Amino acid sequence: MQRYFIDPQDMVDGRAFLQGDDAHHLIRVMRASSGDQVIVCNGIDRECLAEVLETGKDTVTLKILEDLPMRGEPSTSVWIAQSLPKGDKFETVIQKGTEIGVTAFIPFVSARTIVQYDAKKETKRLARWRKIAKEAAEQAHRGKVPDVREAIGWKELLKLAGEAALTVFCYEKEDGTQLKDVLRSAPRPVDGPILVVIGPEGGFTESEAEEAENAGCKLTGLGRRILRTETAGMVAASCILYEYGEMES
Amino acid sequence: MQRYFIDPQDMVDGRAFLQGDDAHHLIRVMRASSGDQVIVCNGIDRECLAEVLETGKDTVTLKILEDLPMRGEPSTSVWIAQSLPKGDKFETVIQKGTEIGVTAFIPFVSARTIVQYDAKKETKRLARWRKIAKEAAEQAHRGKVPDVREAIGWKELLKLAGEAALTVFCYEKEDGTQLKDVLRSAPRPVDGPILVVIGPEGGFTESEAEEAENAGCKLTGLGRRILRTETAGMVAASCILYEYGEMES
Repeated sequence: MQRYFIDPQDMVDGRAFLQGDDAHHLIRVMRASSGDQVIVCNGIDRECLAEVLETGKDTVTLKILEDLPMRGEPSTSVWIAQSLPKGDKFETVIQKGTEIGVTAFIPFVSARTIVQYDAKKETKRLARWRKIAKEAAEQAHRGKVPDVREAIGWKELLKLAGEAALTVFCYEKEDGTQLKDVLRSAPRPVDGPILVVIGPEGGFTESEAEEAENAGCKLTGLGRRILRTETAGMVAASCILYEYGEMES
Repeated sequence: MQRYFIDPQDMVDGRAFLQGDDAHHLIRVMRASSGDQVIVCNGIDRECLAEVLETGKDTVTLKILEDLPMRGEPSTSVWIAQSLPKGDKFETVIQKGTEIGVTAFIPFVSARTIVQYDAKKETKRLARWRKIAKEAAEQAHRGKVPDVREAIGWKELLKLAGEAALTVFCYEKEDGTQLKDVLRSAPRPVDGPILVVIGPEGGFTESEAEEAENAGCKLTGLGRRILRTETAGMVAASCILYEYGEMES
């Protein structure tokens, strides 16, 4: 069944309202008419079965039929911090990561980041990334749209790492600590988000790895095969959510 | 260091020879000259450090310096059988799956496969898929290029499932068996390949799921979020290899 995330204000007194793109999608693409059912989520605490009452030009009025259990959100929160990759790879990370169950995406700039950070383009790019997260969350039956943050610098990343319950800093050292060891030596239940940090195409510098370790990050290998920058986050997130029992019904 | 998979016949008596695209890549793209080092793998049992002796028009002669340990291959073999998806999604499955450690990709046709199977285009498409597997294997430091098979029909898929040590048939049933249960109830070490079967965009039909179960497949859920067809295989493969300790150094 089609799902839409709506503004919490658009769900009131047994009614829900679709606006803008969502209304357009339901009317023009899904060709919905009175009596058709959809699911609406307020992205915070409600996920409801609703029925189309009336379709207007740019708005759809829905009658809320019943509250559904919110099952799409993992109780373990995994965040992906990704050094900005080239091309549209970060879009892949957001789309796939959202399906898998990641709750926040934080782009950052590190020494070997190739992409030029352009503040002027930032607003437009961020809007696009957030749209991808919203659509992927609807498709994947998430209860919330993951957060896509503005790009941050290296120092801010280290600060964020210091605040996470556990920071898995993906860095290949010969025979270094591997993901399973890192996860199994962390306290359970984990008290806050698990932050996964992924380097750019050229990897992290040695001094970055050292600074990260000093900031409390766990330098972690992901096995013997070399993963591309856009693949590493989804693999790490899959394994972490699997380890924490979040790939179960 | 740049890696190339070469025909086992092109590695003989302390010499190795790059031909065709690989020679072109090393000469024109990497601009290699005498004394430069590369790694050559025969895709079966040898991975060697080698030094450029001579570059010709379409061939490069290398001197083998030493045999290296083959570390890129997981000892647990995961195969992905994927109902042919639309567009270039199968290419994504092959590229990402190869990085993760999948050893064979088997496209198949099921009831809801949308893509028209076209035997005429098959040769060209298969060559393209195999090229993607080879390039991803080189990039990921695999010791072997994963096998990309020709597309098979539903009956052949069931036959293949019967021959695998374990078949994880990804199918969402309300509160059905989940991946961890399936993997932990299988004998260890697993005696043969683990086959992961992924449906098309519209999923499997109920009768297909029933036939699969009768053929010995384990109907398996991948958690509470709905994964796209091209994402499911990489997530399942990541979790399986993690569970079997193959995401470690």
